Amino acid sequence: MPRRIGISTGGGDAPGLNAVIRAFVKHAVRDRGWEVLGIEDSFDGLLRKPRGLVPLDLPSCRGLLSRGGTILGTTNRGDPFMYPTADGGKIDRSAETATALREEGIEGVVVMGGDGTLAIGLRLMTDHGVPVVGVPKTIDNDLSVTDLTFGFLTAVEVATDALDRLHTTADSHDRVMFLEVMGRDAGHIALHAGIAGGADIILIPEIPYDPDRVAAKIKARRDVGRPATIIVVAEGALPLESASLDRKARLARLKRGGGAAAIAMAQLEGRIEAEMRSCVLGHVQRGGTPVPFDRILATRLGVAAVDIVARDGWGEMVAYVGDRVVSVPIRDAVAHQKLVDPQGELVYVARATGCELGA
Amino acid sequence: MPRRIGISTGGGDAPGLNAVIRAFVKHAVRDRGWEVLGIEDSFDGLLRKPRGLVPLDLPSCRGLLSRGGTILGTTNRGDPFMYPTADGGKIDRSAETATALREEGIEGVVVMGGDGTLAIGLRLMTDHGVPVVGVPKTIDNDLSVTDLTFGFLTAVEVATDALDRLHTTADSHDRVMFLEVMGRDAGHIALHAGIAGGADIILIPEIPYDPDRVAAKIKARRDVGRPATIIVVAEGALPLESASLDRKARLARLKRGGGAAAIAMAQLEGRIEAEMRSCVLGHVQRGGTPVPFDRILATRLGVAAVDIVARDGWGEMVAYVGDRVVSVPIRDAVAHQKLVDPQGELVYVARATGCELGA
Amino acid sequence: MPRRIGISTGGGDAPGLNAVIRAFVKHAVRDRGWEVLGIEDSFDGLLRKPRGLVPLDLPSCRGLLSRGGTILGTTNRGDPFMYPTADGGKIDRSAETATALREEGIEGVVVMGGDGTLAIGLRLMTDHGVPVVGVPKTIDNDLSVTDLTFGFLTAVEVATDALDRLHTTADSHDRVMFLEVMGRDAGHIALHAGIAGGADIILIPEIPYDPDRVAAKIKARRDVGRPATIIVVAEGALPLESASLDRKARLARLKRGGGAAAIAMAQLEGRIEAEMRSCVLGHVQRGGTPVPFDRILATRLGVAAVDIVARDGWGEMVAYVGDRVVSVPIRDAVAHQKLVDPQGELVYVARATGCELGA
Amino acid sequence: MPRRIGISTGGGDAPGLNAVIRAFVKHAVRDRGWEVLGIEDSFDGLLRKPRGLVPLDLPSCRGLLSRGGTILGTTNRGDPFMYPTADGGKIDRSAETATALREEGIEGVVVMGGDGTLAIGLRLMTDHGVPVVGVPKTIDNDLSVTDLTFGFLTAVEVATDALDRLHTTADSHDRVMFLEVMGRDAGHIALHAGIAGGADIILIPEIPYDPDRVAAKIKARRDVGRPATIIVVAEGALPLESASLDRKARLARLKRGGGAAAIAMAQLEGRIEAEMRSCVLGHVQRGGTPVPFDRILATRLGVAAVDIVARDGWGEMVAYVGDRVVSVPIRDAVAHQKLVDPQGELVYVARATGCELGA
Repeated sequence: MPRRIGISTGGGDAPGLNAVIRAFVKHAVRDRGWEVLGIEDSFDGLLRKPRGLVPLDLPSCRGLLSRGGTILGTTNRGDPFMYPTADGGKIDRSAETATALREEGIEGVVVMGGDGTLAIGLRLMTDHGVPVVGVPKTIDNDLSVTDLTFGFLTAVEVATDALDRLHTTADSHDRVMFLEVMGRDAGHIALHAGIAGGADIILIPEIPYDPDRVAAKIKARRDVGRPATIIVVAEGALPLESASLDRKARLARLKRGGGAAAIAMAQLEGRIEAEMRSCVLGHVQRGGTPVPFDRILATRLGVAAVDIVARDGWGEMVAYVGDRVVSVPIRDAVAHQKLVDPQGELVYVARATGCELGA
Repeated sequence: MPRRIGISTGGGDAPGLNAVIRAFVKHAVRDRGWEVLGIEDSFDGLLRKPRGLVPLDLPSCRGLLSRGGTILGTTNRGDPFMYPTADGGKIDRSAETATALREEGIEGVVVMGGDGTLAIGLRLMTDHGVPVVGVPKTIDNDLSVTDLTFGFLTAVEVATDALDRLHTTADSHDRVMFLEVMGRDAGHIALHAGIAGGADIILIPEIPYDPDRVAAKIKARRDVGRPATIIVVAEGALPLESASLDRKARLARLKRGGGAAAIAMAQLEGRIEAEMRSCVLGHVQRGGTPVPFDRILATRLGVAAVDIVARDGWGEMVAYVGDRVVSVPIRDAVAHQKLVDPQGELVYVARATGCELGA
Repeated sequence: MPRRIGISTGGGDAPGLNAVIRAFVKHAVRDRGWEVLGIEDSFDGLLRKPRGLVPLDLPSCRGLLSRGGTILGTTNRGDPFMYPTADGGKIDRSAETATALREEGIEGVVVMGGDGTLAIGLRLMTDHGVPVVGVPKTIDNDLSVTDLTFGFLTAVEVATDALDRLHTTADSHDRVMFLEVMGRDAGHIALHAGIAGGADIILIPEIPYDPDRVAAKIKARRDVGRPATIIVVAEGALPLESASLDRKARLARLKRGGGAAAIAMAQLEGRIEAEMRSCVLGHVQRGGTPVPFDRILATRLGVAAVDIVARDGWGEMVAYVGDRVVSVPIRDAVAHQKLVDPQGELVYVARATGCELGA
Repeated sequence: MPRRIGISTGGGDAPGLNAVIRAFVKHAVRDRGWEVLGIEDSFDGLLRKPRGLVPLDLPSCRGLLSRGGTILGTTNRGDPFMYPTADGGKIDRSAETATALREEGIEGVVVMGGDGTLAIGLRLMTDHGVPVVGVPKTIDNDLSVTDLTFGFLTAVEVATDALDRLHTTADSHDRVMFLEVMGRDAGHIALHAGIAGGADIILIPEIPYDPDRVAAKIKARRDVGRPATIIVVAEGALPLESASLDRKARLARLKRGGGAAAIAMAQLEGRIEAEMRSCVLGHVQRGGTPVPFDRILATRLGVAAVDIVARDGWGEMVAYVGDRVVSVPIRDAVAHQKLVDPQGELVYVARATGCELGA
């Protein structure tokens, strides 16, 4: 009897998830003869009646390589340890989840997700003996252990395209243009897109900004005859005055202020005289077809995940380190978040090419 | 002595302005031997000391075909009849404008702009005898007399790309996604992008929407197993309750509510239970390289403008009617705004393919 | 009992075919309650055992709007009047085709195709009483009666993108670069892409080129310090010396010479000293997602085709004339091919902006 | 007196060269106060009268980040040790090159190029004491020492886009489609694009292919109902029968056969019955705006090159290793070419997802 392996996707979607699924199924089914079952909506498909399980064979992989999103769906009912009830409470349905897997004859699960989802997978293994292999997924690229996550460069490309477009219109109008990009905690997208798109100012959560410095940069540009300024702002960027807030208070501050771009515009209101305009890319950044790099990376991770399962490397996850695909303990990945290093090379490069980071 | 013709761009920029400039200069300089002077920042270049005038020869056209924005710049000091003063007032500097043209030996001006700029040009001709030829420009495609304006299809492409990306991520998450696109008075961009991008709901200024109908469409989709809904909303779209407002009150309402998408989300708040997310494309739509159609249209108009000047067709403007470039009186263009016809074919087509327009 | 209508796609594929299918099915099924049957591989699906017929309902339309190609397939066994036999001959299976339609209860067929396919449809109607409605399809835009066909602007965009890329590399290297694009008989794609992409020379079938003129243009550019030259060449362009050949001889000449770009390079070999390079885009131009304009046009045509069937307008086809969708007799469309007018406005515009057309 | 540093670009152009120039100038001029002189056409600008030298200041950097090609130009007169004479011979003008640099007060040169250009730079340093810092440049990504070179992922994206387009049209027509991509010696572009674009067969120079295996793959696909096959072929790929040829004989074989795609089609001619079509992307792959990753990488290398010069690290070159920018001896880079490892992970991944590599 063939091995039967489950596969699930949790948390926000990222371009490349379907490419991982495709690669996993192709390698597992063609080369190993396994059965692969897709679990719908993270682990939630195991807790429904009837269960949401999709047999994944070779024909079901057609067209997946270039398709954004995830054919398995994701959900905010993805944590069986804290499953939402109808009355707004939470209950633990983790044992039920493990039972469902056993009843379906699923030997183990390949879990694709960010630190939250991977931690859930790890706990299912620790608490209930569910064998799990991890595939890192975060469009924000803020997972430690892995250099790059698929979807990240796609998001950077969408944001850079927008910057390219803003340049011509900003130049024609002598305006200050804000582009708000994803990144609630980590400014990787803003920093990469800002460098790639030639932004004049980059504001990220890791470097609380001094509005006076930002205003000074805008004025300095005017003084040399460049009245247009392009500012990339991560959705989690806040001014210095909010630097001491904890995460919850920061998110509340962002919501109250109408988002990071709106807050930055308000900060500049009295400091400069200029027309200001903002664009909020939102989920456009996480949708659509993955760039080739992300498709290749996703494919490599999907193939590697099969090989880890083949040698029963449960508890491990695939990672991309120094242009190589390797395997590391899942627990290392969820240990801490990878933020932009304010003293790191990329921040240095941004400044060396004339970018102001606000501090 | 060669003829000396001025050229200026007014109002918001649109992809293709530079392509018009290039075509005009190439045809005028190569084939006619004229001199072309670019006037900076609409008519404002004529009112500065020293004057902002750029000689445009063949080498200065390099790379212009595909470049967004306008190398001549635009400004909000573009109306010499209502020129802003330092103390916030307005004065009439139109006679001064005409004098400057005469002093520079500029025989006439090719004016690229929307209804506002074209009306200014027409008045310069009527009141001060400044010979003017018009080139229609509006990214919103809301000029009567001309079927399509350059820049419009570029904006539609940017918005459609965003919709393509939203589809995959919306499907993965069971969300209601708003994409706010340009169109304060006219919903052409929203309607075209909505049809091209397969939006489920399209909200435009010309059709005040009933929030209950919008909510019903979202629920009907859920009932047939499609929990994600994509809504394109023009920045001037408002619900039925604001239908009787005049233009000024509508704009105030939009500003107060945080924009059309925010207002629509607030309207739906109590009516549906769903995660809602919005993206505001803003000026990303009007920047960047023009799509090929817009480059060709702009080139055709630029060449035609030379030929109108050559036969002293002052007071006329070029137009694109039924796949032909023709010439019409400028006054016809500024007579009324071309809005989406709620009974027109395109609205019918949208509905025939399952789109809800909210009324 | 609901009406049952067939739909088929013939000839080469074009981006937008699936969008027509989607619009037809949506409008026919939702608003009219009809049944729609897709016929596989043009009319060939009717001649197989079992027959290749696909019921098309609303769920089968998902994702079709932006998908290139045709889900119904096309074939070179598409002409039932000249059906290829196993031994390389041809037989008439048209009566059998008509019988199959009757047996399946298909009342009439919406035929999407170029002049060949439309003529076949028309003959099925004339000879066998099969009710037919036509939808024009040609990526070359060479159908009379209709101003633009879907897919054409997509092909122009692919070719223009390639030209944009060639400019930078040609400039860096002082090279003569050929881009061979589609257009065996008609040069519309080459002419449009050439204008949009700023080609220096455009060679099309309608204007046999004088190699000395082409060489002179390259040299004239060098003399003013522009050593790089970009040449767009339609796959059917030939030099003056082949101008008197008939169509068959022209195609043979093209094949023998290795294609239009190779022939042009050979013609220039002795006339200029320069590194020459060629790119042959081939089918890349006809694949992929349609540009928004093509999706909208295809959607409009699909909806209109339903309405023609609804009023039993058999023998008519939809057409796009002067930004309006109209209906014309199929026979008008197949009467003659729409070629580039060497005296037309677009050729004039190309020359007015400095393009050499070789004669 | 400020330091005066030269900068030059040699060999074929690659997207990102201008971004390196921009980053180098910005960091050198703003932060160090140096003078930067661009040398035109590799080293050739030093050997002309008047010399081709361009002062590069901050304004000259505008728009360079996203512009393809190189503003400094390249040439086939780039080797001063083997400088071509009018009569077709070669002479050594290296001493003259070094003298010119001294006369211009240029302290050292940042040389951007592939192994050929870097070797020339190294020899100028060894033989004539010209201080040199290297920046690796090859669109083929075949330089050892550095993991990725800028321009490579741009080329992969162009090729992948073409594959995405070919899929839809191939599926509609049941055809075998060849896409010939760059890579005379190294198959990196073909392998990456093939994986990213879901090619069915990938043919690269490092793995001479068995035509019978290729034909068998096409037939196997037909047998499971997939009559369309997409083949990516590197321009240097040859069948097994040519495996023993040396480089020169291989290039001659390719030329004689009309290129790698034409040869592969000829090999399959008798082995399969299928319509075959080919597209040759050519220089389209090396032109145009760099993808964001390449812009960032180029910017990082340009900044790092300044810092190497600042510490007088002559003889070193910047490299990208394991997501870090480091410095290595130039001589290491030119020691051997980095080819696709037929036993490597990426070839394994291609096969694991169903790709045939022909051996």
